[in-house]
Parts: sequence; structure tokens; C-alpha cells
Amino acid sequence: MNPRLKSIHSVLKQRGLDGLLVSLPANVSYLTESLSRDAYLLVSLKENIYFTDSRYTEEAKAFLKDNALLRECNGFVFKHIAEAALNLGLEKVGFEERYLPFAEFAKIKECVKGKLNLIPTHSIIEDRRQIKDEQEIAKLKKAARITFMALEHIKKFLIPGVKEIEIVAELERFIRYQGAQGSAFDIIVASGPNSSQPHHLSGARKLKDNEPVLIDLGVNYQGYKSDLTRVLFLGKINILEQKVYDIVLKAQELAIKRIRPGAEMAEIDRVARDYIVAQGYGACFTHNLGHGFGLEIHEAPHISGREASAIKPGMTFTVEPGIYLPGKFGIRIEDMVLITTKGCEVIKWH
Amino acid sequence: MNPRLKSIHSVLKQRGLDGLLVSLPANVSYLTESLSRDAYLLVSLKENIYFTDSRYTEEAKAFLKDNALLRECNGFVFKHIAEAALNLGLEKVGFEERYLPFAEFAKIKECVKGKLNLIPTHSIIEDRRQIKDEQEIAKLKKAARITFMALEHIKKFLIPGVKEIEIVAELERFIRYQGAQGSAFDIIVASGPNSSQPHHLSGARKLKDNEPVLIDLGVNYQGYKSDLTRVLFLGKINILEQKVYDIVLKAQELAIKRIRPGAEMAEIDRVARDYIVAQGYGACFTHNLGHGFGLEIHEAPHISGREASAIKPGMTFTVEPGIYLPGKFGIRIEDMVLITTKGCEVIKWH
Repeated sequence: MNPRLKSIHSVLKQRGLDGLLVSLPANVSYLTESLSRDAYLLVSLKENIYFTDSRYTEEAKAFLKDNALLRECNGFVFKHIAEAALNLGLEKVGFEERYLPFAEFAKIKECVKGKLNLIPTHSIIEDRRQIKDEQEIAKLKKAARITFMALEHIKKFLIPGVKEIEIVAELERFIRYQGAQGSAFDIIVASGPNSSQPHHLSGARKLKDNEPVLIDLGVNYQGYKSDLTRVLFLGKINILEQKVYDIVLKAQELAIKRIRPGAEMAEIDRVARDYIVAQGYGACFTHNLGHGFGLEIHEAPHISGREASAIKPGMTFTVEPGIYLPGKFGIRIEDMVLITTKGCEVIKWH
Repeated sequence: MNPRLKSIHSVLKQRGLDGLLVSLPANVSYLTESLSRDAYLLVSLKENIYFTDSRYTEEAKAFLKDNALLRECNGFVFKHIAEAALNLGLEKVGFEERYLPFAEFAKIKECVKGKLNLIPTHSIIEDRRQIKDEQEIAKLKKAARITFMALEHIKKFLIPGVKEIEIVAELERFIRYQGAQGSAFDIIVASGPNSSQPHHLSGARKLKDNEPVLIDLGVNYQGYKSDLTRVLFLGKINILEQKVYDIVLKAQELAIKRIRPGAEMAEIDRVARDYIVAQGYGACFTHNLGHGFGLEIHEAPHISGREASAIKPGMTFTVEPGIYLPGKFGIRIEDMVLITTKGCEVIKWH
């Protein structure tokens, strides 16, 4: 059994649980060190069992090895899960309350007929996933490398008259040639006033001269996701754009300088936010400073003003202040950092 | 208020509910006739309220019109939802039990402090979504058209030595140039033995001469998804491949001929399956015959042997028998049908 599963066994013992039903795909992938799809994993001190349907059994056989038994079930998966838990004699089984739909909980509960207790849990595996191991860091850096290459590659396509969606199209093509399985999310190419929507849907608008183009791009490399935003300018940058750009960049620099193990997440958000507020644009920085990334594009930790927990070595998160002027333009600058023992490394091309 | 929302109001009255919390993104999109993201919609006889965060308020303002009030909430969305429901004086509010996670249900329940009842419901909106209106059919046909164009376009790229993922890359590029927002799912390009995995993850394997290539492709056009599978051959087709191909094609033809309003879903699955069983490959047809498609790539109805409900005009679903010979190859042929008053229309290029 791999160390990740073993560590969950320890947690179960500490919490007095004898099983945990894992349903979040990223968590199942993490524990099986695979690109798991459409599966549930019952982790228990007696036996780990992996439930999937016939579409995925061939690939599951290949990656499960001795980590878990494979149970193929076409339909009625919750009956299978309940039966398996009862057959193993489990009595207290945790489930992921944030990811198990109410109806699935209700079905399992019905199937176990009061013979075992279902205990809501959260963050057991997500907490572990916050600290990346060497293998994960290598994959994240490879994902980041492809992302930077794509950004460099796309510069020559940024010509007035080209549609936003055509820029997305070329990025989608390029990243797969570099080894990515795909994008990590819907790539954002937001030109001119569209950049004032933080999560613009790229469309048929054509790039124009003397306008900013915001590109928010991430790739999926062997399940690991990157996330990077740059604003590029076609032709001239006007005075307001330059001013806002400089404020956002400075806010990011100040935040990154403050990052170190032991610091509060909220402190890092505050450093960037206070600076933007002082410059008069506080109301235009409408989202959190950043988020963890890894097997999911948005995962713990959350770099927000409400997050009192401490930064730890091995964490990876984005630092992405933004200022959005509705109807005019928006500037967001996003980088990825890896927390080291002394501070942080900004993940770059090399 | 649009007719879709009005029809939900009727359902609420029939069921003695005074509200419904809609959380499935496709259902929110359907009711607001938009490309809604990260939002909840509280439909009620008194007022409809749309909850989203600051990233999406600009676009939400544009599409909500008089269909729903916009409530921006950054964090604590469940508190906002609970408060809104209480302020409206609602007493019995349904929720989508298949999509609301247990923890979100628990949070809302806690916030309403026993002052209103939360009632599990399912399929209220999904049932309506099974029958497509003219506007939806036009979008689905446009999605299908781009899909067929892409399949035609890609033929010249199918050359020995090209990687599966490079074929995916070119498809991803091409569909966006034709007006698609993106692919409807991870495009499958499965070469040689990889085609024996029904949902192969396209990778670095290179296409080889005298091998089949299975391409399963769908696009997203204004939120509506298409789904099409073809198996193409590089060089020669061997006798077994030809035999299996002919069986799958015949099974599909028999199933399509049988489709008509009033027929049971299970009957259509059975027609294809019985033929494949009779040819000796029953154990190799490991999935259902088809599935509905629309705002989601997999939606109701399910064309399976367990589905006793009746086919109705306006439904759209796939017909996709397959035979998979592990380690050797797989053949799946998938088309999209639109149910008419007398039978069905196979959606073609034109």
C-alpha cells in the first residue's frame, strides 16, 4: 500500500473511524496515484476497495496494483458500496460531506439499514494535498513550464483582427503538442473592455490596436494543473492602463515578499489589498488574492482575508491581485509560488 | 419572466412547494437562458433570486433581465440563500438532492433554524430539459455541424507517426475557429489496442499503419453539446475488424429503425444488444446504448435496458453500440438522433 493511503489509515485510527468513503475525483486520484475517473474509493483498515464501471476497469487494473481491490459495478454503485462496507464489518465510516450529494448519502444510509454509522468529515485528504511531495512538484513545474512556453508562443498571434477564441484555439493546440493533456480550465482571452470581467468567456470579439489583452491560462500535466495570468498590450498603453498595471504589479511584489512559512494567509492577502486600497482602487479588487493549485485548479489553501491558518513549506498557491474597471479594462497579474523553508520560490520558466 | 421559469412555478404549485433551490449549473443555465457559472437560483412564487459572486455579476446583470433579482455574495452563500428564503416568507423549499452536497444541505438547514422545511426533489428541471425547443434544437444542430466538419477536417492528419494527443490538439483548435466555445468533453483519439478502452485517455501513442483509430468528439456551442464517434482505418482493415465493424453498424441501424415516440427506452437498447449477443459479442458490449445530450453531454434520458419510460418527440439522444476486445481493438459507432412525431431524424452534417 502506498504512503498516502497509509497516512489516511493513521487518520482513521486517530478519529475512531474504521473506514472513509472518498468521492472527490481529485482525492481518489491522489490516493491511488492515478488519473482516476468516475470512481469511489472505500479506504478501510481491513481492505481498500475501488468501485468503478466497465468503461474504466482496464485502466484501473493497471494503476491499482496492491493499493485497493477493484470492484466493477455497472449501476447501483451505492448498493455495492454499502454491501462492501457491511461485509468488511465496518461500523463507523466517514464520508466527504462537501462532495457527496444529499441523495447519495441517503441511498447509502438506506442500504446499510442502520448497521453502520455514516460520519460527515471534510478536508481529511485535501489537508494532506496542500503539501506537495517531490513527485508532485516536478509535475507542477512541468505544467508551469508548458504554460510559460505557450504564453511566449502566442505573442506572435496577438494581431488586431484576430478573435479572442482563435487565440484560445491556438493555445489549446500548442499545449498538447508540448505534452499537456489539455487546459486546466476554460482559457481566458479577454480583450479591451472584456478584461474588466475577471472570468470573461472568450468569444468572437476581435483584438484591437492600443488595447490590453488579458490571458489567463493553465494546463493539465498528468493530472496536475498550472495557472498563470498576464496582460499584454497591442500598440500603445494609455496613462491609466499603465498606472493600474504598475499598482497591480507592485501589490503582487509586496505580497510575494511577505510570503514565508508561519505567516497567516490573511496577512498576505492584506499586504496586497492594503496597497491597492491606498492607491484608491480597493473597490476594484473584487476577489481573493490567490488559491492553492495541484490536482485541482482551485484547492486549499485559500489566500483570503478570512483565512487565519499558517503558510507551510511545500504549499503551492497563486498570487493574483487584480483591478477591474467595469466597461473600461481590467488588469490581473498571476504567478505561482512554491513555499520553501525560508520564503517562497516564484515558479518561472526554468 | 420566461416560460421556463413559469413552468417551474406551475410545478411548485402542484407539489405544494413555495420555492426550489436550483444548484445544478445546467439547470440554472436552462432557467435563465444563459451560460450561467458558479451560481444558485432560488425559484419561488414570490421572487426569483440569483446568487453569484463578484466575478460574474457583470455578465449576470446582462442576462438576468426581469427573470430574477441578482444577489452578489462573496462567501457565505448559504447564509444569503437561507436569509433570502426566510425574508420571502417561504415555508417549503425543495432542493436538488442529486446535486446539493450533504454539507451544503446541512449549512442551509442550520441557517434556517427550523423556520422552513427543506424538501429533497429530483429531476424537476431535468425532465423538462429532455424535450428540446426550437431554439435548443438549432444550437444542437449547429454543434453537430461543427463536429462533422471537424471529423472531415481531421482525416488528412491521420498519418502514421502522429500522436493521438496531436490529433486532439488539432481538433481543439479547429472547432473554436468554427464557432464552438470548446469541446464538450475530453476528446478521445484511441489508436490500435487503445480503442478497446471505451473511454481511453488520449496520449503519446503514435498512429500506425493498418490500425483502427477511434475518434469520439463533441463540441460546446453556446452551452449545447454534441457527441459523435467514428472509427477510421489507416491502411488495411483486417477480417476481424471488418466483421466487428459490420456487426456494430448493423446493431446501430436496427436500433435507429426501432426508435419512435411511445417506444420504451429499454426496447431500443435491447434491439442493438440482442443482435450483438446473437453474433457472439454480447460480453463485449459493456455499456448502455445511449444517453441524452443538450446542456450536459450526458443527461436524461438514459437509453438502457433498465429504462422503462417512453420516448417522446423533441428528445435528443445518442445511439452508440460498441464492441471492445481487450488488448486488441474496439469499435463504437455513435450518432445523434432527434425524435420526431413519427420516428427520428439522425442528425447529419446538413
